Amino acid sequence: MQRHLVGISQIGAVRCHRLIALARAIRQASALPRLDKSVALAFFEPSTRTRLSFEAAATRLGCRVAAFSSAGSSIEKGETVADTIRTLEAIGFDAIVLRHRASDAAEHAASIAKHATIVNAGDGCHEHPTQALLDALTLLDEFGSLEGKRIAIIGDIRHSRVYRSDAALLGMLGAIVGVCAPPLLMPSHLPDGIVQLPDAASAIEWADAAIVLRLQRERMDSGLVPSLSDYRRRYAVRREYLVGSRVRLLHPGPVNPDIELDAVLVESEHSLIQRQVSNGVFIRMAVMIDIFATELVEHFLSH
Amino acid sequence: MQRHLVGISQIGAVRCHRLIALARAIRQASALPRLDKSVALAFFEPSTRTRLSFEAAATRLGCRVAAFSSAGSSIEKGETVADTIRTLEAIGFDAIVLRHRASDAAEHAASIAKHATIVNAGDGCHEHPTQALLDALTLLDEFGSLEGKRIAIIGDIRHSRVYRSDAALLGMLGAIVGVCAPPLLMPSHLPDGIVQLPDAASAIEWADAAIVLRLQRERMDSGLVPSLSDYRRRYAVRREYLVGSRVRLLHPGPVNPDIELDAVLVESEHSLIQRQVSNGVFIRMAVMIDIFATELVEHFLSH
Amino acid sequence: MQRHLVGISQIGAVRCHRLIALARAIRQASALPRLDKSVALAFFEPSTRTRLSFEAAATRLGCRVAAFSSAGSSIEKGETVADTIRTLEAIGFDAIVLRHRASDAAEHAASIAKHATIVNAGDGCHEHPTQALLDALTLLDEFGSLEGKRIAIIGDIRHSRVYRSDAALLGMLGAIVGVCAPPLLMPSHLPDGIVQLPDAASAIEWADAAIVLRLQRERMDSGLVPSLSDYRRRYAVRREYLVGSRVRLLHPGPVNPDIELDAVLVESEHSLIQRQVSNGVFIRMAVMIDIFATELVEHFLSH
Repeated sequence: MQRHLVGISQIGAVRCHRLIALARAIRQASALPRLDKSVALAFFEPSTRTRLSFEAAATRLGCRVAAFSSAGSSIEKGETVADTIRTLEAIGFDAIVLRHRASDAAEHAASIAKHATIVNAGDGCHEHPTQALLDALTLLDEFGSLEGKRIAIIGDIRHSRVYRSDAALLGMLGAIVGVCAPPLLMPSHLPDGIVQLPDAASAIEWADAAIVLRLQRERMDSGLVPSLSDYRRRYAVRREYLVGSRVRLLHPGPVNPDIELDAVLVESEHSLIQRQVSNGVFIRMAVMIDIFATELVEHFLSH
Repeated sequence: MQRHLVGISQIGAVRCHRLIALARAIRQASALPRLDKSVALAFFEPSTRTRLSFEAAATRLGCRVAAFSSAGSSIEKGETVADTIRTLEAIGFDAIVLRHRASDAAEHAASIAKHATIVNAGDGCHEHPTQALLDALTLLDEFGSLEGKRIAIIGDIRHSRVYRSDAALLGMLGAIVGVCAPPLLMPSHLPDGIVQLPDAASAIEWADAAIVLRLQRERMDSGLVPSLSDYRRRYAVRREYLVGSRVRLLHPGPVNPDIELDAVLVESEHSLIQRQVSNGVFIRMAVMIDIFATELVEHFLSH
Repeated sequence: MQRHLVGISQIGAVRCHRLIALARAIRQASALPRLDKSVALAFFEPSTRTRLSFEAAATRLGCRVAAFSSAGSSIEKGETVADTIRTLEAIGFDAIVLRHRASDAAEHAASIAKHATIVNAGDGCHEHPTQALLDALTLLDEFGSLEGKRIAIIGDIRHSRVYRSDAALLGMLGAIVGVCAPPLLMPSHLPDGIVQLPDAASAIEWADAAIVLRLQRERMDSGLVPSLSDYRRRYAVRREYLVGSRVRLLHPGPVNPDIELDAVLVESEHSLIQRQVSNGVFIRMAVMIDIFATELVEHFLSH
């Protein structure tokens, strides 16, 4: 088992279970350890919530955090991922949290790093493992167990790293995963056991919970989505679909209000979106403790 | 009395007096408390000094600070103020310092926040309350009391949140407030008791102290100011107006040298500009202690 | 001797030797002091490694660090260096690390600062003294002494602050400095004792170590370099030049792979580039201790 956190499939079920259990223990803990470590947040794509969530997790555990994004950094000078990783490691960072638009960025970074631990915070269309872990924790809080629960993922499945990580982890936890996307935003290959759902209305009817993906504006311009009104008609989650339903709604954020999800639903009784954000910090604290203070994991889990 | 710091009028005279007294006590204190709190600096408009001042205030009190600005954040993806506040709160920030171009941003944020305290660091043309508090502290240091003192505010009064906060607070402290602006940069309505002054020369002659506002470049292009040379002729504070005068000069910064204020005056004996900056940190520390450690306020004020 | 660190020539040999010795002592130290100081990182030009290196150095010594770059700061509003320095000082920063495109920025900042210490992190074509100190430390680690060692600096000598700082410091330490550049990128005047080398192949043959400078893209467009292929032919350091050679390679980073330096050499046995980065943090910690805790310098050096 590698120390890096590149993807759900790489770390396997045992480590996923441990991270979720650890996040729950941290959420209940009256005191937190202080890890005297340095964490670099290397975000080559814009992000508010993921960066702040990692930053909050690390600083609450007493880590030193240095953040940089592509704007205002040497990335503008054409620095490569490999060069960045080598430099950050030579500066002495113990962990490097990486977000990058290339789908192999985290794997590549992990192959370069000699001492530092790479944590994937989203790489291209590949994976976003801490998002899946926080989604799983949020769903487990709600349902107790995911065995046989039906979880629909709705939106641009084809390009979504959230879908890839969620499908792998939720399947591992016993859930039945369904996907719903316009034909051109569906992947060419779906793993066995994934259910295809024709539109958002039937997905909501089918599901115990729905993870609604953000519609990226660049997709609108790419010709893969016929038009915004066509998209809304079939694939947006609209308030009328939820009348009488007990379905839970998740979204990795930020929501495009009234695009993929009716704005009124964000703060409705169906929504678990704020809990996802809160759980995100606990999951990322669990990742830090798992990486930096393995000896504390048992202590937390035994309480 | 609300816990948020949205505007001078909202917090009222008692809290303003307490914050100013607290800032003075902190300035003299030999030791500072450590507040184990998380502060988000959400700056949707560029700012150096206000952001750094809040950051210095919070970190000197042992707070964890996470800053983000619109560049490089999800704001580029169209995230709204409401979504940002909910997210920051879910991440666990105890206070959110907000700067935003919308005039109702801070009030709106305060209506959204459930646990976190909102501190307005400037919202559109509405208010900039910590600027008014630091201006008042600087003037009180200089004059002892503001009762009957004449304070001229010169520049784009109409669009100025500094004017709105200053006029409210300085009036509350007994000062007579005068305003001086080109006709199109004067508000359609002025509160009772505000004196209109025709040009910078007579404003300087009239005043015990003048707060010179920054001329925003976008105003020059809007047609509201006829030309830069016309503006300079009537509304710039020029060295020759101060010959033989004891008037004090304040400016919220950054100064456009030789535009609204002759560059040579910035470092002159008239200038209180550096003291404003220093006092800004003490005011913002006072705000943090008032929000996070109410039990310490009496301790500081009794020393 | 001034407290500021503007350039190698300003601080002189005694302080350079002390800083290098101090960096070595810190590198070996089992415990580090905590300096309760505030450091501003004022970067008006993009940089990843230099900023992160200073940030890591300061935070490992327990300093509070506030970073800002031109993007998203009031610099966009036309704030001058003088105004920035006065503001940062008034906010209470104890040291200001400055990077700026103007060649007199650090000297100018030092003339403005009243209490804060200015540390030059690169100003225009003038100096980059901590880069020279880390280069010297890296070379001293390798060679024991630089007395009589031949160090070639290859690239855009004319516009390079790294060349100016390196040539001054390495000469001071007894090395023979050679330079190699296209005619239009050679300075009009070279100090006595500097050897001119006609092309990269002969520079590598001549040298015990070569410091390869980054080719700035803006030079390519300026007409000072005839063409990229011409530059590569004569001035790039290519793998074939190093066959059978024991020359060491340094580069201030980030490398343009396969432009000024063949990519394969970056990770080769010749390369000291990662050691430069690691040493950079120790040099900058030495600078902080030298500035903030003079009383600790003897303690470190006696161990």
